Amino acid sequence: MGKVVCLLSGGIDSAVTSAIAKSRGYEVYTITFDYGQRHRKEMKCAEEIAKWLGAKHKVIKADLRQIGGSALTDNIQIPDEYEGMPPTYVPARNTIFLSYALAYAEVIDADAIFIGVNAVDYSGYPDCREEYIKAFQNMANLATKRGVEGKEIKIEAPILYLTKGEIIRKGIELGVPFEKTWSCYRGGKKACGKCPSCLIRLKGFVEAGTEDPIEYESK
Amino acid sequence: MGKVVCLLSGGIDSAVTSAIAKSRGYEVYTITFDYGQRHRKEMKCAEEIAKWLGAKHKVIKADLRQIGGSALTDNIQIPDEYEGMPPTYVPARNTIFLSYALAYAEVIDADAIFIGVNAVDYSGYPDCREEYIKAFQNMANLATKRGVEGKEIKIEAPILYLTKGEIIRKGIELGVPFEKTWSCYRGGKKACGKCPSCLIRLKGFVEAGTEDPIEYESK
Repeated sequence: MGKVVCLLSGGIDSAVTSAIAKSRGYEVYTITFDYGQRHRKEMKCAEEIAKWLGAKHKVIKADLRQIGGSALTDNIQIPDEYEGMPPTYVPARNTIFLSYALAYAEVIDADAIFIGVNAVDYSGYPDCREEYIKAFQNMANLATKRGVEGKEIKIEAPILYLTKGEIIRKGIELGVPFEKTWSCYRGGKKACGKCPSCLIRLKGFVEAGTEDPIEYESK
Repeated sequence: MGKVVCLLSGGIDSAVTSAIAKSRGYEVYTITFDYGQRHRKEMKCAEEIAKWLGAKHKVIKADLRQIGGSALTDNIQIPDEYEGMPPTYVPARNTIFLSYALAYAEVIDADAIFIGVNAVDYSGYPDCREEYIKAFQNMANLATKRGVEGKEIKIEAPILYLTKGEIIRKGIELGVPFEKTWSCYRGGKKACGKCPSCLIRLKGFVEAGTEDPIEYESK
């Protein structure tokens, strides 16, 4: 089996996705983005998950505060509720992250990129849908030297259609250390238990029929 | 007319492309990438061209030395000649740059992104072809909030099929200050006159029937 690049944020979805890549026998190269996110704790979590995976880990600085436009990077309050596209939407974030992953995959000669996008219990982000991933794949094949040579760098999204409960169960099966994961959008010491990301996570653990091992301010 | 984002490197192609955008009546927002290129002089040139355009200019730090794999960013010698894909190929560079441009276009609500890719007098880079641009467009429409709302951010490549001579003639017609442009891959005080980029530029001025106003070490 060859090498793969896994996008690892420190959250549940990317941790389980990376564990799936490892369980398929690949040599895993994890990358985490330091994009100026306020919830910086997730970067430390990503590092610990990479250690658990036995992966070669890389932090890529790609400061999206230079671009702005999101509550995750700007000084905009993160609301508990909203209508329409959430203010935590970061314009073209997955496209920027996948582009760096594509460059890195080409440099290390990896056969695939694993990304933990999910179209079920998601937040309405356009860049978490299957049609987006397929379009990125098509573009990637035309963008790269490897693509031109007919050696596709495959974009793998193995949890795309799993519910949060199913993702957590899959993670338990693979031994993912959920106590090392972080989902809260707010940058506190404990997870807030109230932001959209905490709510989706907590609901997932209920669905999976197990306890979330991390601490919450309130839930 | 609305706003547009122009990728401006400091070279001839992006300068003429940005001038074309301006001549169409758009409000021009130029972006230049500080990606760790050895030929850093082009960033200063980009700033001066942006001033001439009357554009709002932004430098985006996106250090591709973190990824490596190219003679333009790594400590690899830039040869005068090569076979196959040139060592100056930067893996997924246009994809990374266009992704940032896409994010920025979404934040400022721009209607288009202008990029000076060229499929004629080019260096064999896969991400300079029409089919690549079309695939990026398709992906971009699915990636963004604007795309989902049916307001496409158009990827414009107006010099795609012009020869270098035609690009230079177009630039003269629009008054582009070519003395402020920089093409040489090597980071010297004067252009080297020998690297693939200098050779293409010099040939273009011959074709256009005019003198290149910049200084060369030798030519």
